[in-house]
Amino acid sequence: MSDSSVIGTSVKRPDVLGKVTGAARYAGDLALPGMLHAKIKRSTVAHARIKRIDVSQALAFAGVKAVLTHENVPRVLHYGSPHPRSASVTCDQYILDEKVRYWGEGVAAVAATSEEIAEEALDLIEVEYEELPAAFTVEQALAPDAPLVHPQNNNFVVEPILVRRGDIERGFAEAELILEGTYEMGRPTPAYMEPNVCVCQWDQEGELGGKLTVWISTQTPFMVRGILAEVLGLPHHKVRVLVDHMGGGFGAKQDLFQAEFLCALLARETRRPVRLEYTRKETFLGGRSRHPGTVWLKQGFRKDGTITARQARVTLNSGAYGSHAPGVTAVGTTALTSLYRCDNVHLEGRCVYTNTPIAGAYRGYGVVQTYYALDIQLDEAAEKLGIDPAVLKLKNSVREGDISPSGHPIVGHGLEDCIRRGMQETNWLERKTPKQGNVRRGWGMGCEMHGSSAYPGIKEQGNATVRMNEDGTVQLFTGATGLGTGAHTALAQVVAEELGVRFEDVSVVHGDTDVVPWDIGAFASHTTYMGGRAAQMAAEAVKKQLLALASEKLEAAVADLEVRMGTIRVKGSDRSISVRDAVSPKKGVPSSQLAASATYQPTKAYSFAAHFVEVQVDTETGQIDVLQVVPVHELGKVIHPVAAAGQIEGGIQQGIGHTLTEDYVVDPASGRSLNAGFVDYKMPLSLDMPPIRTIMLETAPDPGGPFGAKGIGEDPIIAIGPAIANAVHDAIGVRFRHYPITPEQVLEKLKEKKA
Amino acid sequence: MSDSSVIGTSVKRPDVLGKVTGAARYAGDLALPGMLHAKIKRSTVAHARIKRIDVSQALAFAGVKAVLTHENVPRVLHYGSPHPRSASVTCDQYILDEKVRYWGEGVAAVAATSEEIAEEALDLIEVEYEELPAAFTVEQALAPDAPLVHPQNNNFVVEPILVRRGDIERGFAEAELILEGTYEMGRPTPAYMEPNVCVCQWDQEGELGGKLTVWISTQTPFMVRGILAEVLGLPHHKVRVLVDHMGGGFGAKQDLFQAEFLCALLARETRRPVRLEYTRKETFLGGRSRHPGTVWLKQGFRKDGTITARQARVTLNSGAYGSHAPGVTAVGTTALTSLYRCDNVHLEGRCVYTNTPIAGAYRGYGVVQTYYALDIQLDEAAEKLGIDPAVLKLKNSVREGDISPSGHPIVGHGLEDCIRRGMQETNWLERKTPKQGNVRRGWGMGCEMHGSSAYPGIKEQGNATVRMNEDGTVQLFTGATGLGTGAHTALAQVVAEELGVRFEDVSVVHGDTDVVPWDIGAFASHTTYMGGRAAQMAAEAVKKQLLALASEKLEAAVADLEVRMGTIRVKGSDRSISVRDAVSPKKGVPSSQLAASATYQPTKAYSFAAHFVEVQVDTETGQIDVLQVVPVHELGKVIHPVAAAGQIEGGIQQGIGHTLTEDYVVDPASGRSLNAGFVDYKMPLSLDMPPIRTIMLETAPDPGGPFGAKGIGEDPIIAIGPAIANAVHDAIGVRFRHYPITPEQVLEKLKEKKA
Repeated sequence: MSDSSVIGTSVKRPDVLGKVTGAARYAGDLALPGMLHAKIKRSTVAHARIKRIDVSQALAFAGVKAVLTHENVPRVLHYGSPHPRSASVTCDQYILDEKVRYWGEGVAAVAATSEEIAEEALDLIEVEYEELPAAFTVEQALAPDAPLVHPQNNNFVVEPILVRRGDIERGFAEAELILEGTYEMGRPTPAYMEPNVCVCQWDQEGELGGKLTVWISTQTPFMVRGILAEVLGLPHHKVRVLVDHMGGGFGAKQDLFQAEFLCALLARETRRPVRLEYTRKETFLGGRSRHPGTVWLKQGFRKDGTITARQARVTLNSGAYGSHAPGVTAVGTTALTSLYRCDNVHLEGRCVYTNTPIAGAYRGYGVVQTYYALDIQLDEAAEKLGIDPAVLKLKNSVREGDISPSGHPIVGHGLEDCIRRGMQETNWLERKTPKQGNVRRGWGMGCEMHGSSAYPGIKEQGNATVRMNEDGTVQLFTGATGLGTGAHTALAQVVAEELGVRFEDVSVVHGDTDVVPWDIGAFASHTTYMGGRAAQMAAEAVKKQLLALASEKLEAAVADLEVRMGTIRVKGSDRSISVRDAVSPKKGVPSSQLAASATYQPTKAYSFAAHFVEVQVDTETGQIDVLQVVPVHELGKVIHPVAAAGQIEGGIQQGIGHTLTEDYVVDPASGRSLNAGFVDYKMPLSLDMPPIRTIMLETAPDPGGPFGAKGIGEDPIIAIGPAIANAVHDAIGVRFRHYPITPEQVLEKLKEKKA
Repeated sequence: MSDSSVIGTSVKRPDVLGKVTGAARYAGDLALPGMLHAKIKRSTVAHARIKRIDVSQALAFAGVKAVLTHENVPRVLHYGSPHPRSASVTCDQYILDEKVRYWGEGVAAVAATSEEIAEEALDLIEVEYEELPAAFTVEQALAPDAPLVHPQNNNFVVEPILVRRGDIERGFAEAELILEGTYEMGRPTPAYMEPNVCVCQWDQEGELGGKLTVWISTQTPFMVRGILAEVLGLPHHKVRVLVDHMGGGFGAKQDLFQAEFLCALLARETRRPVRLEYTRKETFLGGRSRHPGTVWLKQGFRKDGTITARQARVTLNSGAYGSHAPGVTAVGTTALTSLYRCDNVHLEGRCVYTNTPIAGAYRGYGVVQTYYALDIQLDEAAEKLGIDPAVLKLKNSVREGDISPSGHPIVGHGLEDCIRRGMQETNWLERKTPKQGNVRRGWGMGCEMHGSSAYPGIKEQGNATVRMNEDGTVQLFTGATGLGTGAHTALAQVVAEELGVRFEDVSVVHGDTDVVPWDIGAFASHTTYMGGRAAQMAAEAVKKQLLALASEKLEAAVADLEVRMGTIRVKGSDRSISVRDAVSPKKGVPSSQLAASATYQPTKAYSFAAHFVEVQVDTETGQIDVLQVVPVHELGKVIHPVAAAGQIEGGIQQGIGHTLTEDYVVDPASGRSLNAGFVDYKMPLSLDMPPIRTIMLETAPDPGGPFGAKGIGEDPIIAIGPAIANAVHDAIGVRFRHYPITPEQVLEKLKEKKA
């Protein structure tokens, strides 16, 4: 929009210099006087009852101040994820239990004067296990007489989710081509740069009645406050959760990880601040992965490419605890109603406990898995039908007025726009991938759509307070955490734009549950969409107050005023006043407080993308290289182009990882984690990254987002996977229906094909 | 009121345990990584031009990181007190100037790696002064050809203040007794326990655009923010002022003390945090005292005690800078229109620059001086007229409907109530003070009234935000600082009472200009009165939101609901719901934010007191001992009895000090401070304190205060002085018209009397 001044500009992010110079403080940088260090002892068996746990030697070790086991922590069954208590999360964890349910689960915690002493003391804790039969795979967990991970529900985390639309039988009867396949997904982990960490400190007992302060790397500070209060038996105003900078979260840092309860309890017992930081290994053992699983998918097509029926059974492996299993299963399964139009749909989603590490929320939230299957099957259909895959997908694209997975109509034609633009940019229909030599090239494309906000699963709300200081500078109060995405910059841009002041005149107050408005947490791609709209609404209210003041000083009606970049003008005249002069009190006392709060309760907006990918496959080594990516995203309105593009590039990096190299592997015999660390778990590094030519469209602005903006957090990780798999097929004619696709498998498949 | 549950109860102050155990953190306790320590070099002459200042040796000294002089600091003429820019304060200071105007003024500042190094480096700074003639007394400053402290206005800080009511000539013509005298006041200092201190830190340049964070002991954090922003050229949102606990302020800590600018500049230059704490000596040299001065007072009386005319000339000594001279002169002078009724009044108030340490705001703000004169002269009149002094004062007491010094009518008969109750409590009219032996006893009484708020000098405003958490606990956001008086406890009580929740369920967020509502500062006895009313208004708004929620759940009209101590009831039924249940969201997401902000713009309320005192005078040593005090205060509504009584006892302690022992003395030849420290400047200690039987009345609640409450901060220091002087006269028949009244003077006067 031509009248935007701040929106759409890549203003310098205020957090960046501190981050690149190391001056920015993360929770783990905190050092408090007298601070102790805590470590967690982890189980060496996958499923067992603790017969005996002896901490006497550890307690006697010089420097050890406290040891906690299941015998001396509160026994409260709690939500492992402090997520809104919707259907999204389960309540199946204790802080420490007499049972262990996976290899690496915490069984005790030590606080000592140094990390080294705490670490050494762990070895002095004797644990005698009574091992139990374990289920490491979904098949084992669903077998008759399978060992139960939790006592109820035959290892189902939730009742199977069923979605039906139309008449599936009729749909398949009308089909001229029916495809069916099972698609299998590995176990990538978010692998955030900043490990899980928290520091807990209690106010002197009595002083404020024993208040707990927690510095933590979390996406959901108010949820952390709520669950700590609940489990530790504190009122909410006696728990303060502080989050400043974060080194990534990617969804997983919505959960609590045992560590926070243990850290708080150790601090209370020792009456000293306690710091507990996971090692990289522990971010695997005690962290959250994406749900591995399978999608059995069957679709019927007419010859012209129309999809007549779609049937699917999604089966996810939750690991030892539920975490976000209900939400991920529901969102991932329901997503199959959409993206590519189909009137007759029958879906089933299941999620199963196993004795493996915990799967949880991870960028893409179930949709990565199901759209991987859906999009590859479209590519398969295109091949069989002799239609170009992009043309087939364009034909079936969800569009304006179609019912979205959340149940309300789609706005605009974002997906079609993305596909068309990508085809144009890549000269798609004339693409050349000569097939000769050992190194083969191929093109593939994949599509996705993803909602901003967790509606309708959760009735969300964004809150913001904006106040203008007596010199015209502005403070935005937001509870949204900054995972490193530049969210606070975007929110400040929205406020600056709406208020008509310069970006530099807006500061953001965040990261302290004592002082910022209640916030549901930073997830579901909703921070800019929902929090931004709330910020815009609060700014709009302050602008009214500002213009009322200016109206007096300029002797003009409010309706005749406009404010841009710090200057208020009487429209069509040369009379103006600076915002500063409009609000500056003559005698030091502002005549009134310019401040307003706003709450925004969104439904949902959908963003869209089509990713076009060129790969090369070395048929001698099986190595797959992504040569270039052209991601086209429709996101309503781009607030900060560089930050938005950064989201897209980062999502593609993670998506390439889960498609080609990243898989957190559990030994099928013992349940032991085999590659908990970056030596054996391979993420693509910056040197591994292909050129990315990002295109951002603003063709379907959402009326609910600030200036039309929609979310961009999760979208970029979804379409890249099937695009790569489809490109590999294009390159070597081999179809892979799983991820990660490894060189060994490429070679094996090529051998099979040859044979 | 019988329906109060929290108000009027001495709830346990949440800050107390930390304070008595030492766990509470004051600004001076802060230690930041890499922090430097700053010291100020102070002038050794009282009036001079700096011819040369050489810092080269100091800069070369190992450990010294920066040295500032007038040659390398911004030259901005600024308000020495960051007070609202009303008529209260002057704008006559530079951070450092090429001129020094009193002995002990700062001329340079050093930042070094330790306090010791910084201290040593001060001696390495060579200063060559060109001495100028100096004026140490008001007489010298007002003499023809007097040296000018500042270039303008012949050493008058402000134009003389003139107040006229009625016809002074007719008044004196009608008088049957005319008394006239000059009353002289010494120079007590507030002598707060916590010295002035600040720690300054700049965010990495670029990171937030160079933001300054200041931890400081101040009563006026937003004013500090404003003046630092102005002088250093920063926008307000780039200055963050933090105040947690304070060890007293007593009005003086409304000012800036050179230190804050120097500390901020040193931190900017060295790019490290810098701490600057005054020594006790510096709290005298660089601090603020009460204004010394004289009150020439002439009054006419009828035989029945009616006051027919009052004429006064108040002359105050401001020292080298203006600070609060305009406000103190105006408030102190105007106070003489009231307390004891008189229709014909002619007052003149003057304030004069001298080359002595700076006088400023100090509890009682000008009124201590003028009521000392007024009340003693009433005692003199009572003697001449043969009327009991309490009866005479009762007769002339200001009362309901009389015009107050601020120009609006008095509410109630508080002063009469205080005098009557004190007479009753002390059995006043039958008091016995047998005059025999060397140790003589005597009774005296004095009265006062004092306004809550600085209206009409400043159009003030109180702001508060109240929010209810999703478990029904409450947070009050207030910008009011806690000087140590328990103000935050009182504000939390008001909120608890208004909202109908328990005191323990309310926390107070304060002390951070980035997050709390704008606040004018804690002064003028207005925190409970004005800030409390704002808090009550915000709580009232939240209560409405709360009852609306409860109304749905209880299926009853809002008007039929009442909320008390955390329970909402349908009146006249047994249906109820806890506040917690009323607001607790079913699925983790609150349906709405329960929060509200309020702004209260008060006029003024007056509190009243009569102090009744018994003293004993040793006629051989001249020693005066206060044997007992019966202070009777009318304060509308007592929020926290123990805290209110603490204010009264503390005020009496300081009042006894200024009346008998405390005087900060300047050498009349050189201007040098002679007793800048607690060895030579004698405050009454706890063991010196007499029994105090405090009586608090609630007979004249003010409609503007929360639950009728009025201020109590300043009142207790005012009446104790004249009560003691009057009691001394009663004991030994000698009239003192000045303070402090020393043993030497007692002996001298007794000798004169004998002769």
